[in-house]
Amino acid sequence: MNAAKEILALNRFDATKASGFDAGLAERIARREATFGASSVLFYEQPIEMVRGEGVFLFDDAGRRYLDVYNNVPSVGHCHPHVVQAISRQAATLNIHTRYLNRTVEAYAGRLLGNFPAPLANLVMTCTGSESNDLALRIAERVTGARGFIVTRAAYHGNTAAVTDISPSSFKAQKLASHVRAVPAPDCNGAPGGDIAALFAAQVSAAIEDLRTSGPGFAGLIVDSIFSSDGIFADPAGFLQPAAAVVRAAGGLFIADEVQPGFGRTGAGLWGFARHGIVPDIVTMGKPMGNGFPMGGVVTRPDYLASFCQDTGYFNTFGGNPVAAAAGLAVLDVIEQEGLIQNAATVGSALKDGLIALKPAFQRIGDVRGAGLFIGLDFIDPQSGAPDTAFASHVINAMKQRGILIGAAGLYGHTLKIRPPLCFSMENAEFFLDTLRGILDAA
Amino acid sequence: MNAAKEILALNRFDATKASGFDAGLAERIARREATFGASSVLFYEQPIEMVRGEGVFLFDDAGRRYLDVYNNVPSVGHCHPHVVQAISRQAATLNIHTRYLNRTVEAYAGRLLGNFPAPLANLVMTCTGSESNDLALRIAERVTGARGFIVTRAAYHGNTAAVTDISPSSFKAQKLASHVRAVPAPDCNGAPGGDIAALFAAQVSAAIEDLRTSGPGFAGLIVDSIFSSDGIFADPAGFLQPAAAVVRAAGGLFIADEVQPGFGRTGAGLWGFARHGIVPDIVTMGKPMGNGFPMGGVVTRPDYLASFCQDTGYFNTFGGNPVAAAAGLAVLDVIEQEGLIQNAATVGSALKDGLIALKPAFQRIGDVRGAGLFIGLDFIDPQSGAPDTAFASHVINAMKQRGILIGAAGLYGHTLKIRPPLCFSMENAEFFLDTLRGILDAA
Repeated sequence: MNAAKEILALNRFDATKASGFDAGLAERIARREATFGASSVLFYEQPIEMVRGEGVFLFDDAGRRYLDVYNNVPSVGHCHPHVVQAISRQAATLNIHTRYLNRTVEAYAGRLLGNFPAPLANLVMTCTGSESNDLALRIAERVTGARGFIVTRAAYHGNTAAVTDISPSSFKAQKLASHVRAVPAPDCNGAPGGDIAALFAAQVSAAIEDLRTSGPGFAGLIVDSIFSSDGIFADPAGFLQPAAAVVRAAGGLFIADEVQPGFGRTGAGLWGFARHGIVPDIVTMGKPMGNGFPMGGVVTRPDYLASFCQDTGYFNTFGGNPVAAAAGLAVLDVIEQEGLIQNAATVGSALKDGLIALKPAFQRIGDVRGAGLFIGLDFIDPQSGAPDTAFASHVINAMKQRGILIGAAGLYGHTLKIRPPLCFSMENAEFFLDTLRGILDAA
Repeated sequence: MNAAKEILALNRFDATKASGFDAGLAERIARREATFGASSVLFYEQPIEMVRGEGVFLFDDAGRRYLDVYNNVPSVGHCHPHVVQAISRQAATLNIHTRYLNRTVEAYAGRLLGNFPAPLANLVMTCTGSESNDLALRIAERVTGARGFIVTRAAYHGNTAAVTDISPSSFKAQKLASHVRAVPAPDCNGAPGGDIAALFAAQVSAAIEDLRTSGPGFAGLIVDSIFSSDGIFADPAGFLQPAAAVVRAAGGLFIADEVQPGFGRTGAGLWGFARHGIVPDIVTMGKPMGNGFPMGGVVTRPDYLASFCQDTGYFNTFGGNPVAAAAGLAVLDVIEQEGLIQNAATVGSALKDGLIALKPAFQRIGDVRGAGLFIGLDFIDPQSGAPDTAFASHVINAMKQRGILIGAAGLYGHTLKIRPPLCFSMENAEFFLDTLRGILDAA
C-alpha cells in the first residue's frame, strides 16, 4: 500500500463499515455520497457535521467543541473578525479582475513583496496553491528549457494535471511520470553521521544526473521546506543549502512551496525558506494566504516572469481581485498585531518539549520533529521500532472522542501531524498534551 | 499576428506609448508594473482606477460611472447585496474544507445538480474554471484511455499547463501541442448552404481521424457553446448535435465548458448546452458561479468520476467550502428571484435587434450574432468586407470615453464582445445603442 492509501485509510469514513448511525446522519451521508460521488472524502468512522468555527475551535451540530489541530488554512484562527470584516467590506464595494488599477490590490502586492528578499520582486496572484505550483513549473520549464523535476517521495504540491504528476502522495494506481524523480525525505535518522544536508544534496544530485541522461533534463527541485506530507522534517535549519547549491550549479531552479510553511507557521519569520537561509528562484503560496479565502500567489524574479510571458499569455480571472487582496492584507495585519510568528515559536517550542518529555514513559513515541506550530510525532512499535500506522489511526480517532481534530502524515502514515492555527495558546497546548497522555495511558 | 496578440493589442495599455499622464497616475502605473512585472495587463491607453461597483455600473476614482458591458463574472450585478450578505454571514460563521459534513455545502450541491439532466449526477467543486477544465481533461483521458483533444481555433479554456495547451487564444510563441487539434469556429458564413451543423461535425470528424492515426487517440471535444473567444457563434440553436454524435460514435467525450454561457447568459435556461439540445459527458463551470467569489465546478457521470478516482486522489482545499456554497446558493436565488434568464432573453433580443437595425446606415457593421446577453458584432471594411480590427479598437476606446466598458473577441479581434451583467436593463441597452450610433456617426 502506498502513502496515499495509507494516509487516507487512517481516518477516512468508509460506508461499507458504517453502522449504528441515527437515521438523520445516515441520510446526510447518503446524500453527500450521492452528490460528490467517488470524490467524496469524509473524515472519521462517524463523520462530523460542522456548523461554526471560532479561533482554534470548531463546533459540531450538537454544539460540541473541537480543538482544531489539523487545519493550517484558517491560520490566524477560524473566522477571524478582522479578516471577515475585510472580506465583507470589500465584497460590498468592488470585486473585479486586475485589468484596472485598484489601490487595495496594489497595497497588497507591495506589502507582500516587501517581505521577500531580492531578486524576488514580481508577484502573480492566483486562486490556489495548485494554480501557483502549476505556474511555477511552467516558468521553470521556460527558463531552463528542460522538463524534469525533483520532489520528495511523499510530496504533495496540488491537484492540477501538472502538479499531480509531482505529488506522489496523491497516487493510487498512478505511477511516477518519466520527467519526475522522487528522492527520500530528509530524515536525519537515515543519514550517515546524521548529516542530512550532505545526504539530501547527494540524492538530489543523483536525481539530476538521472534526469539529464534519460532525456527530460533538469528544470528544478520543488520542496516545501517543512516537508509536510513526507512527515515533517525541519532540522537542522539550513540543511537545504547544499541541495540548493547543487540545483543552481546544475542550471536548475529552486522552487519553495510555501503553502505549508509560509505565513509564519515555523515561528521563524514569514517563510520556511528563510529559516534555511536560502533564497529560492520561485516561491509559491496558497492555503493560509487568505485564511480560507481562495487565493494563492507566485513570487519570482522579473526576468524569469518576463521570459515566461514571451511565449504565453497568463491571466487569472479571480486572481488578485480586491476581495482577495483585502483578505491578504488582513491576514498580514493579524500576524503582526497578534504576534503570531512569536506565538508559533513560543507555544510550538513548549509543545515540542512537552511531547519529547512524554517519550520516556511511552515507548510508542518515536521521533518528535518540527518547527514552530508544525510538529510531527512518529508512532512506532516499542519492540521493533517499525512505523505503527494502526496506532496513529487509533490516536486520531481517540482524539476526536476527546474533542481534538488531528491528522497524520508521512510515507507510512504513522506520523501525527500537529498543525493548529497560529493563535494556538499555551493552554491549548497543555490540553493537547494532557489528552495525548490520557490516550497513551489507556492504550 | 495571432489571435492572442491581436486581441490584447486592441485595448491593452502600452507603457512605451504612454504620455501626458498626471504624476499620480504615472506613479501608480509604474508601481503596478514593478510588482506584477511582465504579467501585468491593464486595459486602455490610459488605465482606469476602479473604486466601486454596483449592478451594471463601475465607478472610477474620480467618481465617473461606467456601464460594464465587458464583464460576465459579476453576472447578477456587481456587489449584489444578496450575494455579499451570504458571503459575509458564512465567512463569519464557518469556512472549511469538505471533509466534514456541512448543510450549506450539501444544499448547494443538491440544488445545482437538480438543474442538470441525467446521467450528470456528481459534482466536484473547484476554485476556478481553469481547475475545472484541468480536471475534466483528466477524467476524459482516464475514461477513454486516449490523450487527444479537439478545440476551436481561438478557444480559451483557462490557465493551467494542461488547459493552456487547449487554449490557442493564449498562445504567443507557443505552438499547438501534438495531442491537440484546432478546428475552425462554427461560422455559418463559411458553411456550404449555411449548414454549419454538418460542416462543424465534418471538421470534428476529420480532426478525430487525424488524432487517431497520429498517435494520441481521441479523448474528447471541448467547446463553450457560445464560442466566446472565437467571436460568438450561437445559431442556429442545435447545430452542435451532429458534432456531439460524431464525438460519441468515436468513443470520445463531449465536454461543455459553461464558464461563458452558463448560469443564464444565453437567455435559454441555465446552460448553453441545453440550448443546443445536447447532454454533455462532462460540464465545467467557473466565472459567474459565485458572482466573483472564486469557485468552479465539474459535473459528470458517477461512473466516469469513479473511474478517475481509482487512479488518483483528488482533493481541492478551498473547493466546496461553505462560503463558496453560500455564494453559489445566493447566485441561484438572484437568477430565479429577479428573473434574470428571462431578462437576458428579452433585453438581449431587443439589443440584438437594435444592432441589426443599425446595419443599413453603417456599412462598417458586419455580422451580428448571439443569444441572450452575449452578442458579437463584427466590424468590417465597407469595401472589402475584411475584418477591421483597428476600427474595433477605435470603438472600444471611444466607448470608454463615453462611459462604457467593452472588449473584443474572435480570431481577428474585430468582433465587439457584448457581455454585460444579466441585470442589464432596456434603458442600459438603449444607452448602449445610442452610444454606438454616436461613435459610428462621428467616424
